[in-house]
Amino acid sequence: MGCTLYVIRHAESQWNPIGRYQGLLDPDLSERGEKQAQLLALELKNKGIELIYTSPLTRTKRTAQIVAQVLGVPLIEDRRVIEIDHGVWSGKLVEEVKREFPEMFETWIKEPWKVDFPQGENLLKVYERVKDFIEEIKEKHKNQTVAVVSHTVPIRALYCAALGLPIEYFWSFGCDNASYSIVRFEEDRITLHKLNITSHLEKEGLYEEAHRAL
Amino acid sequence: MGCTLYVIRHAESQWNPIGRYQGLLDPDLSERGEKQAQLLALELKNKGIELIYTSPLTRTKRTAQIVAQVLGVPLIEDRRVIEIDHGVWSGKLVEEVKREFPEMFETWIKEPWKVDFPQGENLLKVYERVKDFIEEIKEKHKNQTVAVVSHTVPIRALYCAALGLPIEYFWSFGCDNASYSIVRFEEDRITLHKLNITSHLEKEGLYEEAHRAL
Repeated sequence: MGCTLYVIRHAESQWNPIGRYQGLLDPDLSERGEKQAQLLALELKNKGIELIYTSPLTRTKRTAQIVAQVLGVPLIEDRRVIEIDHGVWSGKLVEEVKREFPEMFETWIKEPWKVDFPQGENLLKVYERVKDFIEEIKEKHKNQTVAVVSHTVPIRALYCAALGLPIEYFWSFGCDNASYSIVRFEEDRITLHKLNITSHLEKEGLYEEAHRAL
Repeated sequence: MGCTLYVIRHAESQWNPIGRYQGLLDPDLSERGEKQAQLLALELKNKGIELIYTSPLTRTKRTAQIVAQVLGVPLIEDRRVIEIDHGVWSGKLVEEVKREFPEMFETWIKEPWKVDFPQGENLLKVYERVKDFIEEIKEKHKNQTVAVVSHTVPIRALYCAALGLPIEYFWSFGCDNASYSIVRFEEDRITLHKLNITSHLEKEGLYEEAHRAL
Protein backbone atom coordinates (compact mmCIF):
# COMPACT_ATOMS: atom_id res chain seq x y z
CA MET A 1 0.00 0.00 0.00
CA GLY A 2 2.68 2.52 0.88
CA CYS A 3 2.35 5.98 2.37
CA THR A 4 -0.40 8.38 1.33
CA LEU A 5 0.41 12.06 1.88
CA TYR A 6 -2.22 14.80 1.85
CA VAL A 7 -0.49 18.05 0.91
CA ILE A 8 -2.44 21.05 2.16
CA ARG A 9 -1.82 24.72 1.47
CA HIS A 10 -2.79 27.00 4.37
CA ALA A 11 -6.10 28.88 4.13
CA GLU A 12 -6.12 32.53 3.05
CA SER A 13 -3.95 34.82 5.16
CA GLN A 14 -4.55 38.53 5.62
CA TRP A 15 -1.86 39.29 3.01
CA ASN A 16 -2.86 36.77 0.31
CA PRO A 17 -5.77 38.71 -1.21
CA ILE A 18 -3.66 41.86 -1.65
CA GLY A 19 -0.70 39.96 -3.14
CA ARG A 20 1.91 40.71 -0.47
CA TYR A 21 4.98 38.44 -0.25
CA GLN A 22 5.14 36.84 3.17
CA GLY A 23 8.17 34.61 3.38
CA LEU A 24 8.86 34.12 7.08
CA LEU A 25 6.72 37.11 8.10
CA ASP A 26 3.74 35.92 10.03
CA PRO A 27 0.26 37.31 9.26
CA ASP A 28 -2.71 35.40 10.66
CA LEU A 29 -5.57 33.91 8.60
CA SER A 30 -8.14 36.32 7.17
CA GLU A 31 -11.81 35.94 8.10
CA ARG A 32 -12.36 34.14 4.80
CA GLY A 33 -9.34 31.98 5.61
CA GLU A 34 -10.87 30.88 8.92
CA LYS A 35 -14.01 29.79 7.06
CA GLN A 36 -11.95 28.03 4.38
CA ALA A 37 -10.07 26.07 7.03
CA GLN A 38 -13.35 24.91 8.58
CA LEU A 39 -14.63 23.68 5.20
CA LEU A 40 -11.31 21.98 4.52
CA ALA A 41 -11.50 20.20 7.88
CA LEU A 42 -14.99 18.87 7.11
CA GLU A 43 -13.81 17.75 3.65
CA LEU A 44 -10.88 15.83 5.15
CA LYS A 45 -12.93 13.89 7.68
CA ASN A 46 -13.03 10.15 7.10
CA LYS A 47 -10.06 10.09 4.74
CA GLY A 48 -8.00 8.08 7.20
CA ILE A 49 -5.51 10.85 8.04
CA GLU A 50 -3.71 9.80 11.24
CA LEU A 51 -1.32 12.67 11.85
CA ILE A 52 -0.70 16.20 10.58
CA TYR A 53 2.66 17.87 10.06
CA THR A 54 2.71 21.65 9.80
CA SER A 55 5.00 24.54 9.10
CA PRO A 56 5.37 26.53 12.34
CA LEU A 57 4.09 29.85 10.91
CA THR A 58 0.73 31.15 12.14
CA ARG A 59 -1.20 30.77 8.84
CA THR A 60 -0.22 27.11 8.49
CA LYS A 61 -0.42 26.25 12.17
CA ARG A 62 -3.86 27.81 12.53
CA THR A 63 -5.10 25.90 9.45
CA ALA A 64 -3.58 22.69 10.77
CA GLN A 65 -5.08 23.20 14.23
CA ILE A 66 -8.58 23.59 12.82
CA VAL A 67 -8.20 20.43 10.72
CA ALA A 68 -6.53 18.44 13.52
CA GLN A 69 -9.28 19.34 15.95
CA VAL A 70 -12.09 18.22 13.62
CA LEU A 71 -10.20 15.03 12.75
CA GLY A 72 -9.06 14.38 16.32
CA VAL A 73 -5.47 13.69 15.29
CA PRO A 74 -2.11 14.96 16.61
CA LEU A 75 -0.12 17.82 15.14
CA ILE A 76 3.66 18.04 14.70
CA GLU A 77 5.57 21.20 13.73
CA ASP A 78 8.34 20.74 11.18
CA ARG A 79 10.52 23.62 9.98
CA ARG A 80 11.50 21.75 6.81
CA VAL A 81 8.14 22.72 5.27
CA ILE A 82 8.27 26.40 6.28
CA GLU A 83 7.88 29.03 3.51
CA ILE A 84 10.93 30.18 1.57
CA ASP A 85 12.60 33.18 3.19
CA HIS A 86 11.84 35.86 0.57
CA GLY A 87 14.41 38.16 2.26
CA VAL A 88 14.08 41.75 1.04
CA TRP A 89 10.83 40.93 -0.83
CA SER A 90 9.08 40.05 2.43
CA GLY A 91 6.22 42.40 3.23
CA LYS A 92 6.21 43.92 -0.26
CA LEU A 93 3.35 43.82 -2.77
CA VAL A 94 3.87 42.05 -6.10
CA GLU A 95 3.64 45.45 -7.84
CA GLU A 96 6.31 46.92 -5.56
CA VAL A 97 8.62 43.97 -6.18
CA LYS A 98 8.14 44.29 -9.96
CA ARG A 99 9.12 47.97 -9.74
CA GLU A 100 11.99 47.69 -7.27
CA PHE A 101 13.50 44.39 -8.44
CA PRO A 102 12.46 44.05 -12.11
CA GLU A 103 15.23 41.64 -13.14
CA MET A 104 15.00 39.49 -10.05
CA PHE A 105 11.24 39.31 -10.51
CA GLU A 106 11.59 38.17 -14.11
CA THR A 107 14.09 35.53 -13.04
CA TRP A 108 11.71 34.37 -10.29
CA ILE A 109 9.01 33.82 -12.93
CA LYS A 110 11.27 32.21 -15.55
CA GLU A 111 14.10 30.47 -13.68
CA PRO A 112 13.20 30.69 -10.00
CA TRP A 113 16.03 28.40 -8.86
CA LYS A 114 18.49 31.10 -9.93
CA VAL A 115 17.18 33.69 -7.46
CA ASP A 116 19.16 34.19 -4.26
CA PHE A 117 16.86 36.40 -2.22
CA PRO A 118 19.06 39.06 -0.57
CA GLN A 119 18.90 38.40 3.18
CA GLY A 120 16.84 35.32 2.33
CA GLU A 121 16.92 31.81 0.87
CA ASN A 122 17.35 30.05 -2.48
CA LEU A 123 14.75 27.67 -3.95
CA LEU A 124 17.29 24.86 -4.17
CA LYS A 125 17.65 24.95 -0.40
CA VAL A 126 13.87 24.64 -0.05
CA TYR A 127 13.94 21.71 -2.49
CA GLU A 128 16.57 19.98 -0.35
CA ARG A 129 14.72 20.44 2.93
CA VAL A 130 11.34 19.24 1.59
CA LYS A 131 13.08 16.29 -0.10
CA ASP A 132 14.57 15.42 3.26
CA PHE A 133 11.11 15.74 4.82
CA ILE A 134 9.38 13.39 2.38
CA GLU A 135 12.18 10.83 2.48
CA GLU A 136 11.63 10.58 6.24
CA ILE A 137 7.82 10.63 6.05
CA LYS A 138 7.48 7.86 3.50
CA GLU A 139 9.70 5.56 5.54
CA LYS A 140 8.16 6.47 8.89
CA HIS A 141 4.56 6.12 7.70
CA LYS A 142 4.58 3.05 5.48
CA ASN A 143 0.96 1.98 4.98
CA GLN A 144 -0.32 5.10 6.75
CA THR A 145 -2.11 8.25 5.61
CA VAL A 146 -0.70 11.52 6.94
CA ALA A 147 -1.00 15.19 6.00
CA VAL A 148 1.28 18.21 5.81
CA VAL A 149 0.20 21.86 5.91
CA SER A 150 2.64 24.11 4.10
CA HIS A 151 3.10 27.07 1.70
CA THR A 152 3.21 27.56 -2.10
CA VAL A 153 6.98 27.43 -2.50
CA PRO A 154 7.75 24.32 -0.43
CA ILE A 155 4.61 22.60 -1.77
CA ARG A 156 5.61 23.05 -5.42
CA ALA A 157 9.15 21.98 -4.55
CA LEU A 158 7.68 18.94 -2.78
CA TYR A 159 5.85 17.82 -5.95
CA CYS A 160 9.13 18.02 -7.87
CA ALA A 161 11.04 16.15 -5.17
CA ALA A 162 8.34 13.49 -4.75
CA LEU A 163 7.96 12.76 -8.47
CA GLY A 164 11.71 12.92 -9.09
CA LEU A 165 11.39 16.02 -11.27
CA PRO A 166 14.10 18.64 -11.50
CA ILE A 167 13.24 22.01 -9.93
CA GLU A 168 12.76 23.41 -13.46
CA TYR A 169 9.16 22.14 -13.13
CA PHE A 170 8.56 24.31 -10.07
CA TRP A 171 5.83 26.48 -11.64
CA SER A 172 4.05 23.54 -13.31
CA PHE A 173 1.57 22.91 -10.49
CA GLY A 174 -1.46 24.86 -9.25
CA CYS A 175 -1.52 25.69 -5.53
CA ASP A 176 -4.51 27.58 -4.12
CA ASN A 177 -5.35 28.52 -0.52
CA ALA A 178 -6.95 25.74 1.56
CA SER A 179 -6.46 23.29 -1.30
CA TYR A 180 -5.30 19.73 -0.87
CA SER A 181 -3.47 17.27 -3.07
CA ILE A 182 -2.76 13.57 -2.64
CA VAL A 183 0.66 12.01 -3.23
CA ARG A 184 1.06 8.22 -3.04
CA PHE A 185 4.37 6.57 -2.27
CA GLU A 186 4.13 2.92 -3.31
CA GLU A 187 6.95 0.41 -3.60
CA ASP A 188 7.09 0.56 -7.40
CA ARG A 189 5.40 3.86 -8.17
CA ILE A 190 4.98 7.41 -6.88
CA THR A 191 1.78 9.11 -8.00
CA LEU A 192 0.36 12.58 -7.86
CA HIS A 193 -3.11 11.16 -7.40
CA LYS A 194 -5.02 14.44 -7.08
CA LEU A 195 -3.83 18.04 -7.31
CA ASN A 196 -5.03 21.33 -5.87
CA ILE A 197 -8.56 20.32 -4.95
CA THR A 198 -10.75 23.23 -3.85
CA SER A 199 -14.27 21.91 -4.53
CA HIS A 200 -15.08 22.23 -0.81
CA LEU A 201 -14.52 26.01 -1.15
CA GLU A 202 -16.14 26.51 -4.53
CA LYS A 203 -19.55 25.25 -3.48
CA GLU A 204 -19.58 27.83 -0.65
CA GLY A 205 -18.27 30.70 -2.81
CA LEU A 206 -15.05 30.81 -0.79
CA TYR A 207 -12.61 29.97 -3.57
CA GLU A 208 -10.02 32.51 -4.69
CA GLU A 209 -7.37 31.55 -7.22
CA ALA A 210 -3.80 32.17 -6.04
CA HIS A 211 -1.77 35.04 -7.52
CA ARG A 212 0.41 33.56 -10.27
CA ALA A 213 3.62 35.23 -9.02
CA LEU A 214 3.34 34.14 -5.40
CA MET B 1 -4.53 34.62 -20.84
CA GLY B 2 -3.84 31.67 -23.12
CA CYS B 3 -5.80 28.47 -23.63
CA THR B 4 -7.43 26.60 -20.77
CA LEU B 5 -8.00 22.90 -21.44
CA TYR B 6 -10.32 20.73 -19.34
CA VAL B 7 -9.13 17.14 -19.62
CA ILE B 8 -11.93 14.70 -18.89
CA ARG B 9 -11.77 10.94 -18.54
CA HIS B 10 -14.90 9.15 -19.72
CA ALA B 11 -17.37 7.96 -17.10
CA GLU B 12 -17.36 4.31 -16.00
CA SER B 13 -17.79 1.81 -18.82
CA GLN B 14 -19.26 -1.65 -18.42
CA TRP B 15 -15.74 -3.11 -18.38
CA ASN B 16 -14.03 -0.69 -15.99
CA PRO B 17 -15.36 -2.13 -12.70
CA ILE B 18 -14.23 -5.66 -13.60
CA GLY B 19 -10.77 -4.52 -14.78
CA ARG B 20 -11.00 -5.55 -18.43
CA TYR B 21 -8.61 -3.93 -20.93
CA GLN B 22 -10.57 -2.13 -23.60
CA GLY B 23 -8.21 -0.53 -26.06
CA LEU B 24 -10.22 0.10 -29.21
CA LEU B 25 -13.00 -2.29 -28.18
CA ASP B 26 -16.16 -0.39 -27.57
CA PRO B 27 -18.28 -1.13 -24.45
CA ASP B 28 -20.91 1.46 -23.53
CA LEU B 29 -21.15 3.31 -20.20
CA SER B 30 -22.38 1.36 -17.19
CA GLU B 31 -25.46 2.54 -15.32
CA ARG B 32 -23.18 4.14 -12.73
CA GLY B 33 -21.24 5.70 -15.60
CA GLU B 34 -24.40 7.34 -16.96
CA LYS B 35 -25.03 8.90 -13.55
CA GLN B 36 -21.39 9.97 -13.23
CA ALA B 37 -21.57 11.74 -16.59
CA GLN B 38 -24.67 13.65 -15.49
CA LEU B 39 -22.94 14.83 -12.29
CA LEU B 40 -19.85 15.76 -14.28
CA ALA B 41 -21.97 17.82 -16.67
CA LEU B 42 -23.55 19.76 -13.80
CA GLU B 43 -20.11 20.31 -12.27
CA LEU B 44 -18.76 21.73 -15.54
CA LYS B 45 -21.55 24.25 -16.05
CA ASN B 46 -20.46 27.88 -15.87
CA LYS B 47 -16.77 27.14 -16.29
CA GLY B 48 -16.69 28.91 -19.66
CA ILE B 49 -16.11 25.77 -21.75
CA GLU B 50 -16.92 26.68 -25.36
CA LEU B 51 -16.27 23.47 -27.24
CA ILE B 52 -15.66 19.79 -26.49
CA TYR B 53 -13.33 17.44 -28.33
CA THR B 54 -13.89 13.72 -27.86
CA SER B 55 -12.38 10.40 -28.73
CA PRO B 56 -14.79 8.62 -31.13
CA LEU B 57 -15.33 5.53 -28.95
CA THR B 58 -18.75 5.04 -27.35
CA ARG B 59 -17.68 5.53 -23.70
CA THR B 60 -16.03 8.87 -24.43
CA LYS B 61 -18.58 10.05 -26.97
CA ARG B 62 -21.51 9.25 -24.71
CA THR B 63 -19.82 11.11 -21.80
CA ALA B 64 -19.07 14.05 -24.07
CA GLN B 65 -22.61 14.14 -25.43
CA ILE B 66 -24.10 14.33 -21.94
CA VAL B 67 -21.75 17.17 -20.98
CA ALA B 68 -22.15 19.01 -24.30
CA GLN B 69 -25.93 18.88 -24.02
CA VAL B 70 -26.00 20.34 -20.50
CA LEU B 71 -23.45 23.00 -21.46
CA GLY B 72 -25.05 23.70 -24.84
CA VAL B 73 -21.74 23.57 -26.70
CA PRO B 74 -20.60 21.79 -29.89
CA LEU B 75 -18.78 18.47 -29.99
CA ILE B 76 -15.92 17.47 -32.31
CA GLU B 77 -14.57 13.93 -32.69
CA ASP B 78 -10.79 13.61 -32.86
CA ARG B 79 -9.02 10.26 -33.32
CA ARG B 80 -5.76 11.63 -31.89
CA VAL B 81 -7.18 11.22 -28.37
CA ILE B 82 -8.54 7.70 -28.86
CA GLU B 83 -7.38 4.98 -26.40
CA ILE B 84 -4.16 3.08 -27.08
CA ASP B 85 -4.73 -0.04 -29.15
CA HIS B 86 -3.96 -2.70 -26.54
CA GLY B 87 -3.85 -5.32 -29.33
CA VAL B 88 -3.92 -8.86 -27.95
CA TRP B 89 -4.68 -7.57 -24.41
CA SER B 90 -7.99 -6.10 -25.58
CA GLY B 91 -10.97 -7.75 -23.95
CA LYS B 92 -8.84 -9.52 -21.33
CA LEU B 93 -9.05 -9.05 -17.56
CA VAL B 94 -5.99 -7.70 -15.71
CA GLU B 95 -5.62 -11.11 -14.01
CA GLU B 96 -5.66 -12.90 -17.39
CA VAL B 97 -3.06 -10.52 -18.81
CA LYS B 98 -0.82 -11.05 -15.77
CA ARG B 99 -1.03 -14.82 -16.31
CA GLU B 100 -0.73 -14.92 -20.10
CA PHE B 101 1.77 -12.09 -20.60
CA PRO B 102 3.69 -11.86 -17.28
CA GLU B 103 6.80 -10.16 -18.70
CA MET B 104 4.91 -7.75 -20.90
CA PHE B 105 2.67 -6.87 -17.97
CA GLU B 106 5.67 -6.12 -15.76
CA THR B 107 7.17 -3.95 -18.49
CA TRP B 108 3.85 -2.12 -18.86
CA ILE B 109 3.94 -1.25 -15.15
CA LYS B 110 7.62 -0.36 -15.00
CA GLU B 111 8.63 0.92 -18.45
CA PRO B 112 5.38 1.20 -20.43
CA TRP B 113 6.99 2.97 -23.39
CA LYS B 114 8.89 -0.25 -24.14
CA VAL B 115 5.74 -2.30 -24.74
CA ASP B 116 4.77 -2.93 -28.35
CA PHE B 117 1.33 -4.46 -28.02
CA PRO B 118 1.14 -7.37 -30.51
CA GLN B 119 -1.46 -6.37 -33.11
CA GLY B 120 -1.66 -3.03 -31.33
CA GLU B 121 0.13 0.25 -30.65
CA ASN B 122 3.10 1.61 -28.71
CA LEU B 123 2.82 4.31 -26.04
CA LEU B 124 5.28 6.55 -27.88
CA LYS B 125 2.87 6.69 -30.81
CA VAL B 126 0.10 7.78 -28.45
CA TYR B 127 2.42 10.42 -26.99
CA GLU B 128 3.08 11.77 -30.50
CA ARG B 129 -0.58 11.95 -31.49
CA VAL B 130 -1.72 13.69 -28.29
CA LYS B 131 1.23 16.09 -28.53
CA ASP B 132 0.08 16.91 -32.04
CA PHE B 133 -3.45 17.41 -30.70
CA ILE B 134 -2.46 19.86 -27.95
CA GLU B 135 -0.09 21.80 -30.20
CA GLU B 136 -3.04 22.45 -32.49
CA ILE B 137 -5.55 23.15 -29.69
CA LYS B 138 -3.44 25.72 -27.86
CA GLU B 139 -2.88 27.69 -31.07
CA LYS B 140 -6.45 27.40 -32.28
CA HIS B 141 -8.04 28.36 -28.94
CA LYS B 142 -5.86 31.16 -27.63
CA ASN B 143 -7.78 32.88 -24.84
CA GLN B 144 -10.52 30.23 -24.94
CA THR B 145 -11.57 27.43 -22.62
CA VAL B 146 -12.19 24.07 -24.28
CA ALA B 147 -12.48 20.46 -23.11
CA VAL B 148 -11.37 17.05 -24.31
CA VAL B 149 -12.91 13.71 -23.33
CA SER B 150 -10.41 10.86 -23.57
CA HIS B 151 -9.01 7.70 -21.95
CA THR B 152 -6.38 6.88 -19.29
CA VAL B 153 -3.47 6.23 -21.65
CA PRO B 154 -3.78 9.29 -23.92
CA ILE B 155 -4.66 11.47 -20.92
CA ARG B 156 -1.51 10.55 -18.99
CA ALA B 157 0.53 10.95 -22.17
CA LEU B 158 -1.11 14.35 -22.64
CA TYR B 159 0.06 15.54 -19.21
CA CYS B 160 3.62 14.54 -20.13
CA ALA B 161 3.41 16.21 -23.53
CA ALA B 162 1.80 19.38 -22.16
CA LEU B 163 4.29 19.86 -19.31
CA GLY B 164 7.26 18.91 -21.48
CA LEU B 165 7.94 15.76 -19.46
CA PRO B 166 9.45 12.64 -20.98
CA ILE B 167 7.08 9.66 -21.23
CA GLU B 168 8.95 8.10 -18.27
CA TYR B 169 6.51 10.07 -16.08
CA PHE B 170 3.51 8.32 -17.65
CA TRP B 171 2.32 6.62 -14.45
CA SER B 172 2.86 9.71 -12.27
CA PHE B 173 -0.69 11.04 -12.57
CA GLY B 174 -4.03 9.85 -11.17
CA CYS B 175 -6.84 9.35 -13.70
CA ASP B 176 -10.26 8.23 -12.45
CA ASN B 177 -13.55 7.77 -14.32
CA ALA B 178 -15.54 10.98 -14.91
CA SER B 179 -12.71 13.05 -13.43
CA TYR B 180 -11.51 16.32 -14.85
CA SER B 181 -8.22 18.17 -14.77
CA ILE B 182 -7.30 21.68 -15.88
CA VAL B 183 -4.24 22.47 -17.98
CA ARG B 184 -3.33 26.11 -18.70
CA PHE B 185 -1.27 27.13 -21.70
CA GLU B 186 0.01 30.64 -21.11
CA GLU B 187 2.66 32.51 -23.08
CA ASP B 188 5.38 32.03 -20.44
CA ARG B 189 4.09 29.08 -18.45
CA ILE B 190 2.20 25.81 -18.79
CA THR B 191 0.46 24.69 -15.62
CA LEU B 192 -1.31 21.60 -14.44
CA HIS B 193 -3.73 23.70 -12.45
CA LYS B 194 -5.91 20.92 -11.07
CA LEU B 195 -5.65 17.14 -11.45
CA ASN B 196 -8.14 14.28 -11.36
CA ILE B 197 -11.00 16.06 -9.62
CA THR B 198 -13.85 13.76 -8.63
CA SER B 199 -15.51 15.69 -5.80
CA HIS B 200 -18.73 15.83 -7.84
CA LEU B 201 -18.87 12.01 -7.68
CA GLU B 202 -17.71 11.57 -4.10
CA LYS B 203 -20.53 13.56 -2.57
CA GLU B 204 -23.05 11.28 -4.32
CA GLY B 205 -21.22 8.05 -3.48
CA LEU B 206 -20.45 7.46 -7.16
CA TYR B 207 -16.66 7.56 -6.96
CA GLU B 208 -14.60 4.48 -7.77
CA GLU B 209 -10.84 4.68 -7.92
CA ALA B 210 -9.33 3.46 -11.18
CA HIS B 211 -7.46 0.14 -11.33
CA ARG B 212 -3.76 0.91 -11.03
CA ALA B 213 -2.76 -1.24 -14.02
CA LEU B 214 -5.26 0.20 -16.47
